[in-house]
Amino acid sequence: MARLLTSEERTLKLQPLMGAGGWALVDGRDAMEKSFVFGDFVQAFAFMTSVALKAEKMDHHPEWFNVYNRVDITLSTHDCQGLSSRDIALAELIDQAAASAAK
Amino acid sequence: MARLLTSEERTLKLQPLMGAGGWALVDGRDAMEKSFVFGDFVQAFAFMTSVALKAEKMDHHPEWFNVYNRVDITLSTHDCQGLSSRDIALAELIDQAAASAAK
Repeated sequence: MARLLTSEERTLKLQPLMGAGGWALVDGRDAMEKSFVFGDFVQAFAFMTSVALKAEKMDHHPEWFNVYNRVDITLSTHDCQGLSSRDIALAELIDQAAASAAK
Repeated sequence: MARLLTSEERTLKLQPLMGAGGWALVDGRDAMEKSFVFGDFVQAFAFMTSVALKAEKMDHHPEWFNVYNRVDITLSTHDCQGLSSRDIALAELIDQAAASAAK
């Protein structure tokens, strides 16, 4: 069972992903979000496929919206209704997938 | 260049997809939407992959949102800022993909 990040974990693990890391907290909900833009739909969907495989492997899935070359991702943990360490782990995998994606 | 569906085309081609067809018009925008629910994330993403390949082939892409086993799709044509025959064609391909998807 996932549990919400503690204040200390938010400072140590969540904060580094915010700001220059490109993630932001969602208004009115304990969740984090980031938008990714690629060269075209094929590149965007290749990125989504990479993330889908990683997400399924860790049994933790994103909420995401795609239109053409843009992918907007929101992370939160259903079990605990907010941000858990699983969201941190998935965000890091997503950033890695984006960094290695075709641009 | 795509052009907006005429009134006659809306009656003949769009209307059959509405109602029992599961598609609905979007409020405040000339677009159509439908939600699809699958057994799990793998099935939902397999469906999305099938649709992605078809969409890329016809060079017309959906706006879509996925969370776990649910996929919400909105169709509209950027070129003409509304519904065109390309949306009808993509909607039919999407319904076929959903019908042949694992449930």
